[in-house]
Amino acid sequence: MSITKAYASDSPTSGFAASTLDRREPGPTDVEIAIDFCGLCHSDVHSIRGEWGGNSYPLTPGHEIVGKVSAVGSDVTSFAPGDAVGVGCMVDSCRECDSCLKGFEQYCERGMTGTYGAVDKRNGSVVTQGGYSQSIVVDQGYVLRVPANLDPAAVAPLLCAGITTYSPLRRLNVDKGDTVGVIGLGGLGHMAVKIAKAMGASVTVFTSSPAKEEAARALGADSVVVSSDAQQLEAANDSLNVIIDTVAAVHDLNPYLRTLKRDGSLVQLGLPAGEMPAVNPGQLISKRLSYSGSLIGGIAETQEMLDFCAEHNVVSSIEMVSAGQLDAAYDRMVAGDVKYRFVLDTSTL
Amino acid sequence: MSITKAYASDSPTSGFAASTLDRREPGPTDVEIAIDFCGLCHSDVHSIRGEWGGNSYPLTPGHEIVGKVSAVGSDVTSFAPGDAVGVGCMVDSCRECDSCLKGFEQYCERGMTGTYGAVDKRNGSVVTQGGYSQSIVVDQGYVLRVPANLDPAAVAPLLCAGITTYSPLRRLNVDKGDTVGVIGLGGLGHMAVKIAKAMGASVTVFTSSPAKEEAARALGADSVVVSSDAQQLEAANDSLNVIIDTVAAVHDLNPYLRTLKRDGSLVQLGLPAGEMPAVNPGQLISKRLSYSGSLIGGIAETQEMLDFCAEHNVVSSIEMVSAGQLDAAYDRMVAGDVKYRFVLDTSTL
Repeated sequence: MSITKAYASDSPTSGFAASTLDRREPGPTDVEIAIDFCGLCHSDVHSIRGEWGGNSYPLTPGHEIVGKVSAVGSDVTSFAPGDAVGVGCMVDSCRECDSCLKGFEQYCERGMTGTYGAVDKRNGSVVTQGGYSQSIVVDQGYVLRVPANLDPAAVAPLLCAGITTYSPLRRLNVDKGDTVGVIGLGGLGHMAVKIAKAMGASVTVFTSSPAKEEAARALGADSVVVSSDAQQLEAANDSLNVIIDTVAAVHDLNPYLRTLKRDGSLVQLGLPAGEMPAVNPGQLISKRLSYSGSLIGGIAETQEMLDFCAEHNVVSSIEMVSAGQLDAAYDRMVAGDVKYRFVLDTSTL
Repeated sequence: MSITKAYASDSPTSGFAASTLDRREPGPTDVEIAIDFCGLCHSDVHSIRGEWGGNSYPLTPGHEIVGKVSAVGSDVTSFAPGDAVGVGCMVDSCRECDSCLKGFEQYCERGMTGTYGAVDKRNGSVVTQGGYSQSIVVDQGYVLRVPANLDPAAVAPLLCAGITTYSPLRRLNVDKGDTVGVIGLGGLGHMAVKIAKAMGASVTVFTSSPAKEEAARALGADSVVVSSDAQQLEAANDSLNVIIDTVAAVHDLNPYLRTLKRDGSLVQLGLPAGEMPAVNPGQLISKRLSYSGSLIGGIAETQEMLDFCAEHNVVSSIEMVSAGQLDAAYDRMVAGDVKYRFVLDTSTL
């Protein structure tokens, strides 16, 4: 057991305070990582503030982890001390079900082990603690290799926001000549724009805020539709192959479905707390549209995403924060005041 | 111009009466067909009774047409008098848009020309009249070849009910080892069971009526789930790759989505008049499910379906009716009292 510095919340309302975590000694297949950076994901806010219920406190969140290997277990051959590595949203899964065997660990039929707040059955059933800390120990099967040519701090958000948007774009074979719509321009949305552009697509950003048009274009968007403007929305009808919907608030999908061409797909990534208005099946039938969901990505696919980002020089647009700024950063995330992802510098813990 | 016997309705409430239709002389690319049989589709009922609005009366419905070529235009080389042929839900489309050029004429961006009740722009803008008649003239590009080894009367419903279920099953690559659910056991549902079985799938029928279990098994269903029985439904969770939903009444899809495995698809074919309960996006996200729609099929695909049915000896289960029984047959269709498709013998017109 080793002790590492961390920041944790003691309750949904306590805010963050300095603390320490016990990390296990690396087992034969474990990799110990000295964490340099950890992205702040909106789901961290939901978890810490108890909006998804059922947390065990104190809790240290963080599942966009980048650092360097500090030690490896006796059976680890593919990682060595000093390697630049990352950890995303999961640190284990059953490794036996059909989903795990096919590399879709995120859909593990017995439930993946989340990077924080999950019961780690394979390691004494302790509750996992995340990356707002200076070290973590993770089985080698859930460790990613961070490409050398990318800024490691800006890579951190790729491990959740990046893979969550890359996975459906890749699965739908987005390629040159395709047209991709992105609803929402936050942490996920800005990555969807960058990745879809890197895949060669023409990208339309849907935003409720006219003020975001310039920012969307700066990220590479080819066009911007202000979604509160019915005329603008209608002008986009029948223009898109794929829509990546990153908005986690309740919203009506039907106007967006109209912007899809025949055989188009709308992929919803965010889960609103309330009930969404129903999708009109007539729209699905008349153009053979698909409305689907997608959850992060598998480990092999996450590595593929990192390698793709290295090749296309894609990283997240980030703002660095220190440990003492975590509570304020959370408030700004709730207010939508971040371009586009906060990253914690763990040297400040 | 030639005159052919037909049955038509004069208004949404008049019922059917004997009448005649003018059919154009075959142009250079036209095929004139002596109609032997025409299936009765539930959409005929909706149309004739004005439930979808906007009809021009008198109207002769019918888009599951089988007969023999009686004459061909000067430029027709692929059909000859005496050939067994069929016509489905469309008799023309723009032939120029992306959908038409790719063989998806049913999604023609300028709107396909329906076999009845549509304005036939290429032929004097007359309103098309359907297959409850003894002859029809159709451009060769919209005529299907009827396989010699199948009962032609039982082939007629393949031209709508058959292709509507075949198209999504084929598009989703249903194959041996797959598990397919079919919601509803009417004209479309019974074809979905037969075709999915012919593709090698294991088939589960969802029916609200326990009395239909035996009939479902007789059609080839491997299992039957009474959808009003929550325990039976729950026992089917995580078991299916594809669900073909043929029910056109308002119903909650969420219990059915739970029966899909990871990456499963639910395809809705029927369009309810009222608003469907919303699909829970959490279900779509947690198993990467897809909810989609599908509309009949293209011409080439319809021929492929007919050839598939010939190879696998699949036809519709039918009950023959004479012209004088049309009104009673419509009432029985509304009551769900048909196993599984009525076919009009046009010699009785």
